[in-house]
Amino acid sequence: MANKASSRLEWRINVPGGTSKVLEPESGAVGKIWVGLKGCMGIIVWKVWRVLENAWHIGVADPRKVIHCIKVGLALSIVSLFYYMRPLYDDFGGNAMWAVMTVVVVFEYTVGATFYKCINRVIATFLAGALGVGIHLVAEQSGDQLKPIILGISVFLFASAATFSRFIPSVKARFDYGAMIFILTFSLVSVSGYRVVELFELAHMRLSTIAIGTSLCILVTMLFCPVWAGCELHHLIHQNMEKLADSLDGCVTEYFKENGSEEDLKKKMQGYKCVLNSKAAEESMANFARWEPTHGRFNFRHPWKQYLKIGASLRNCAYCIETLNSCISSEIQAPPCLRKHFSNKCMKASSYSINVLKELAITIMKMKKSSNIDIKVAEMNFAVEELVDALKSLPTTHFIATTTGEESTKAKAEGVEGSEHPSPIIKVLPLVKVVSLMVEIATRIGGVVNAVKELARLAEFKAAKDGKPKQNQPTDKLVSDH
Amino acid sequence: MANKASSRLEWRINVPGGTSKVLEPESGAVGKIWVGLKGCMGIIVWKVWRVLENAWHIGVADPRKVIHCIKVGLALSIVSLFYYMRPLYDDFGGNAMWAVMTVVVVFEYTVGATFYKCINRVIATFLAGALGVGIHLVAEQSGDQLKPIILGISVFLFASAATFSRFIPSVKARFDYGAMIFILTFSLVSVSGYRVVELFELAHMRLSTIAIGTSLCILVTMLFCPVWAGCELHHLIHQNMEKLADSLDGCVTEYFKENGSEEDLKKKMQGYKCVLNSKAAEESMANFARWEPTHGRFNFRHPWKQYLKIGASLRNCAYCIETLNSCISSEIQAPPCLRKHFSNKCMKASSYSINVLKELAITIMKMKKSSNIDIKVAEMNFAVEELVDALKSLPTTHFIATTTGEESTKAKAEGVEGSEHPSPIIKVLPLVKVVSLMVEIATRIGGVVNAVKELARLAEFKAAKDGKPKQNQPTDKLVSDH
Repeated sequence: MANKASSRLEWRINVPGGTSKVLEPESGAVGKIWVGLKGCMGIIVWKVWRVLENAWHIGVADPRKVIHCIKVGLALSIVSLFYYMRPLYDDFGGNAMWAVMTVVVVFEYTVGATFYKCINRVIATFLAGALGVGIHLVAEQSGDQLKPIILGISVFLFASAATFSRFIPSVKARFDYGAMIFILTFSLVSVSGYRVVELFELAHMRLSTIAIGTSLCILVTMLFCPVWAGCELHHLIHQNMEKLADSLDGCVTEYFKENGSEEDLKKKMQGYKCVLNSKAAEESMANFARWEPTHGRFNFRHPWKQYLKIGASLRNCAYCIETLNSCISSEIQAPPCLRKHFSNKCMKASSYSINVLKELAITIMKMKKSSNIDIKVAEMNFAVEELVDALKSLPTTHFIATTTGEESTKAKAEGVEGSEHPSPIIKVLPLVKVVSLMVEIATRIGGVVNAVKELARLAEFKAAKDGKPKQNQPTDKLVSDH
Repeated sequence: MANKASSRLEWRINVPGGTSKVLEPESGAVGKIWVGLKGCMGIIVWKVWRVLENAWHIGVADPRKVIHCIKVGLALSIVSLFYYMRPLYDDFGGNAMWAVMTVVVVFEYTVGATFYKCINRVIATFLAGALGVGIHLVAEQSGDQLKPIILGISVFLFASAATFSRFIPSVKARFDYGAMIFILTFSLVSVSGYRVVELFELAHMRLSTIAIGTSLCILVTMLFCPVWAGCELHHLIHQNMEKLADSLDGCVTEYFKENGSEEDLKKKMQGYKCVLNSKAAEESMANFARWEPTHGRFNFRHPWKQYLKIGASLRNCAYCIETLNSCISSEIQAPPCLRKHFSNKCMKASSYSINVLKELAITIMKMKKSSNIDIKVAEMNFAVEELVDALKSLPTTHFIATTTGEESTKAKAEGVEGSEHPSPIIKVLPLVKVVSLMVEIATRIGGVVNAVKELARLAEFKAAKDGKPKQNQPTDKLVSDH
């Protein structure tokens, strides 16, 4: 593909070059203009090429987007049949235009968004049409003088009120598009009514063409490779959980390893940024998901709002990981002996935290209650306890050892090598920070666990059957700690 | 207002109650239905009342939203004149509908958004119209058999391609609406062309009605209390900076004060959450701002993108403040004597950091280079240095004092009271965390300073004239630290 295109590019550049040689003897000005044009053409071709390349990558990364485009083309081609086929055209005439418009405006990437727009459009058109006809009838009774005044005032009032309703958050979330269509239809009906006698006919036409357009959209969007907003949200939350686990893993590994960092690790560490930035996407998907009918494993009344809570708790973790990430690049680092001492404990705590996150990700992916999440949480809490204990024992070994120099033998016996720095608190500061952030992250993962458990309760997840035999289950006391 | 409404509410409930007594002897079933209806009515009235109350609060909080609604009503009323006035109607006929539609669809809250939609609509309509007419002419040459096939394929291809272009981020940011209008117009022209003979006439009509609609929108939106997206963005960034300063102030005060927290302080502390959540708003405003013409203090090519960078650096600070906030609610707290020792230094560092943030907020608000930002940054860095020094000196005084118990007199002489706890590291952990977060926050405020300086350079801010006399300016070395 790239070869083919580059040869085409060469061809474009070569051919004008070839002709310019023929033109050269004609005139200098023409030659200059030609060269200028050639330059412009080159830049334009290059820019268009860049956009196409970009588009190609997008299409390869998510072929469903390409399918969506084909679906839009298909729906439009089908609705065009209303024009091309005489019998249908004779029924609807110029009003068939509304069907085309509906398809263009209403067809969205996800099923939920399409449903949201379809339902809003139909209901708003019906309400506004009925209201418009009603006011038109009232105005008709008031005589020719008053009629335009009544119609004008009603347009002003209803348009203003509907516009204002779009500022109310609860209305905006569900009926923003409906409010716009209400204004549109009401203005058109009350304004057209002034001229067109067959007002009921018009309203009927508009409603039926819109019904045809919306049902076509819903059919096409649901029958050909449907993209469900609910599934997307589900997938996003699951993915974000894994990214968070990877980031945590990457950060802790990066901090405690001795060699320089690899590109792979760096990339892995950046996963938390996706979590930080996915709030808007989550909210819009949850908004659309509630319009979707039962599909796959999701009921009509699936608790989509709980996904937002899980997303918020994940972001809560991500804030901490962001701070943790900045510790890594901190200039002051703890002495290597101390780092080695804490390395194992920290890695253990982080790997148990990651285990919990991965288990939660699996719970969400499979939509089955995890049989061993409590064990994993207990393991995490136990590892964090150990880490805190290690920190607690730090001053009685290392600090004294380094500051008074008396107990260095005792410290050595405990596996911590003495160090000769006079002010260790500033030296251990980054380490203490990392450890305390690990503790904080574990606490926040507890919040994620609770949110996922609440989801499992609300969505009535079934218990997983393939529960592994419960080994070394800690006591309940540990589970409730932290 | 509320009194009046509640009396009206009572009236509604009282009157049916009064009449039900009269109806009672008639029949039991009718009575039950009546009671049921009464209940439903009550609930509906209550719900509508809640929404109205909500709307009232929104209107009081930002009267510009009410003005926007009046503007929409006004624009629609003006465009309706095309129908009511015979001469204008005779010129445009049914096509005047497009002007009404344009006003409804294009009129947005900010001037930038209205411009974005207007320009997109006009250009896309023109391009799609021209292309549609061109393809129609080509199809005309191919005979009646091939014509519908050519038209159908062209609709399919162009609709798919334009839909796909909406997935490319650079296109989506600037031309999303244009792509939709392109598909709409192209489909309508190529489909109508099959029937309507006067295709050029139609294209001309649609273009001129859209031009009327868009110019009316632009006039109304710019002449009556315009809301500039650029100003809003400017204001949002300025406000977020102040909120961040307040949060930092609130958190540090809350942590170090002895008494219980007040409601006021709690509310103040939550300001950073606005900063965390304002990414989407900032991006959409920056997107719209670049469509706006020169207004007030902002040129056409004002560096709006730099505001996004400032916003990102503010969010960077907010992540740290979020972590700081969680330290406050931590169960384990440092011993009071230690907290007192650090209280002053921490408060000093935080107040200097707040000074820097407030100075930056003033720089942005006034759009004038601050004459003493460097001094304030130096003061902040100096205070942070002192804080770090205090932390450095901690083990040689307090730790020894508490763990070996030998040097408690020396510690007392230095103003730190001895404590009898055996493992101080866990006790000082929250304090060390707070201090290290303060240091980190100061570093990140440095990032905000750089971003604001870059903005001042790009937007060519003038130097402030009312620079206060430079007192106690620290050396340059300190400024460059941290």
